[in-house]
Amino acid sequence: MGIKPRLPESCASCRAAVSVELKKVVDRCPAGLGQMLRYHMGWQDEQGQRRDGESGKFMRSTLCLLSCEAVGGDASEVMPAAAAVELVHNFSLLHDDIEDVSCERHHRPTVWRIWGQAQAINAGDAMFALAYLALLGLEERGVPGEMIVSAVRELSQACLDLCEGQYLDLEYERRLDITVEDYLDMAAKKTAALFAVSASLGAYLGRGDERVAGCLDLFGKELGMAYQIHDDLLGIWGTEEVTGKPADDISQRKKTLPVVYGLQNSRGEQKDRLAELYGRETIGACEMAEISRILEQTGARDYAEKLATQYYSRAMTQLEASGLAASRQAPLGEIASFLLKRDF
Amino acid sequence: MGIKPRLPESCASCRAAVSVELKKVVDRCPAGLGQMLRYHMGWQDEQGQRRDGESGKFMRSTLCLLSCEAVGGDASEVMPAAAAVELVHNFSLLHDDIEDVSCERHHRPTVWRIWGQAQAINAGDAMFALAYLALLGLEERGVPGEMIVSAVRELSQACLDLCEGQYLDLEYERRLDITVEDYLDMAAKKTAALFAVSASLGAYLGRGDERVAGCLDLFGKELGMAYQIHDDLLGIWGTEEVTGKPADDISQRKKTLPVVYGLQNSRGEQKDRLAELYGRETIGACEMAEISRILEQTGARDYAEKLATQYYSRAMTQLEASGLAASRQAPLGEIASFLLKRDF
Repeated sequence: MGIKPRLPESCASCRAAVSVELKKVVDRCPAGLGQMLRYHMGWQDEQGQRRDGESGKFMRSTLCLLSCEAVGGDASEVMPAAAAVELVHNFSLLHDDIEDVSCERHHRPTVWRIWGQAQAINAGDAMFALAYLALLGLEERGVPGEMIVSAVRELSQACLDLCEGQYLDLEYERRLDITVEDYLDMAAKKTAALFAVSASLGAYLGRGDERVAGCLDLFGKELGMAYQIHDDLLGIWGTEEVTGKPADDISQRKKTLPVVYGLQNSRGEQKDRLAELYGRETIGACEMAEISRILEQTGARDYAEKLATQYYSRAMTQLEASGLAASRQAPLGEIASFLLKRDF
Repeated sequence: MGIKPRLPESCASCRAAVSVELKKVVDRCPAGLGQMLRYHMGWQDEQGQRRDGESGKFMRSTLCLLSCEAVGGDASEVMPAAAAVELVHNFSLLHDDIEDVSCERHHRPTVWRIWGQAQAINAGDAMFALAYLALLGLEERGVPGEMIVSAVRELSQACLDLCEGQYLDLEYERRLDITVEDYLDMAAKKTAALFAVSASLGAYLGRGDERVAGCLDLFGKELGMAYQIHDDLLGIWGTEEVTGKPADDISQRKKTLPVVYGLQNSRGEQKDRLAELYGRETIGACEMAEISRILEQTGARDYAEKLATQYYSRAMTQLEASGLAASRQAPLGEIASFLLKRDF
């Protein structure tokens, strides 16, 4: 318990390759604006000094590259799309941190804490624009215009889904009547859409056939759902050491799956108490402990764990349905199991 | 004085056509998120009830359509690009209003004042994603993939410039040592880049030749500079009736051209007084009146008016250099003179 599982070898090498591409793209950004982006990515400290290491696991770009390789494509050709999905993810993190008033990410102060909200909004916008410039690197790799246009369309639709998911996430904070179904709709947009497009772009641009790309798209989607629910569990029962940020989903009144399930399925006194605690102006450590205890008692933790496992299984079913050779499926299976193994 | 000049006929009809396209694009946005966008665009009130009229002059999209027609292109084919530049402009307004803590736009509360900062950031992001989805409408209009890819590239680069311009604008607020050159660099990115790409996309997608498209790009750029300086003048000496928002550039410590010039060119007591007033924690009505008086005395207002006229002339020179028939230049010339005629 509390031990970080090792990043699979194939993921580590994807991350290193994507990082090189990303640094080139971010270098297009002029100094001041670029500094915030480099800080956010973990390449520089607050003063602009070089810093070793990376922020984040680069799961979405890895999914893109591994999907490309799974269909027999050339990962170096698809690299611009991998960089693009990673930039979209990071643009959304920059803005989410402001929207959720999150003070830390990867054990470091968030960009808005250092440069202020206004510049952090701006940094996120720049990251968003860079995602498209990154994607257009496909042209230099000889990808035909029509395919690039399709890729731009898929990515933009995923971005719109992401905004809608974030919209719902924020709306739900104010409500206590969210159903599991509402939650799943939100998670599909907020998280699964970008996972899905990461995998499907890799397969599509890697010239996989349409049916296989469709399976990998669904693989990404189901995996994204599993990932989000797992993340919800970490947000309540995870340690800061593992997640890199305080477990503050509860204090932000996030309608994570365990909470939604708990509010829906608790009865009588327990239900009232949970609603009362969750409705308070400020939720301190004592309230948090009590809420997580009630959630365990109502079976919310078990339910969420089972649902995460179910989505994981569905993802694996899609991967098998692709009909790809087992050796080609393996790296994708490995990343999926890694994502669900992150410990409490 | 104080009378709004009439929108030229060609602009009014462009605006009506773009509005139809924009409404279709924004309809792709699910209800809650879409409501904020429709409110911002002026199509709905706060409660989601239909509202007649439009927010804004749609200058950028008009520039795009008129540039297309000037080179003999089919404006209906280029409509997706016109919608895209308008959406980019509006995404930036949504975020700028948060960044600048602006409470009103077009005589109405800004989106963040009604839905809060978090959802307003999110609404801007959705508008940004929609801009790309709008642009991809070019595909259904039969525009070849390679040309669409070029358009995506141009637009994305302009967005990045826009973020850089906004970055500088915010940075300058904290400084008193900004030079006219610094200011011009900021305005080129914050405003002129999107004007330039609006005109050049219209010409390029309208199948104008490269040299002509280059002239119209510069026409847009110079016009954008003139427009920004004119806007600065309105921000200090304009009436709320005309601008639709309080004249609060000074209270936000914006380094607009008159202020930059004034700080650079005043001497002795006047210089100290200006710096002292501009450095204050809060700038009230009395201070604002005194600052604008000092700026007039140091010749800052004259200087800015002359520079705006100069940029306008340069824009017209580029328009002539395009070599297009006078009748084709006319609507572009008309919009340029309209933009600089907006009254105090």
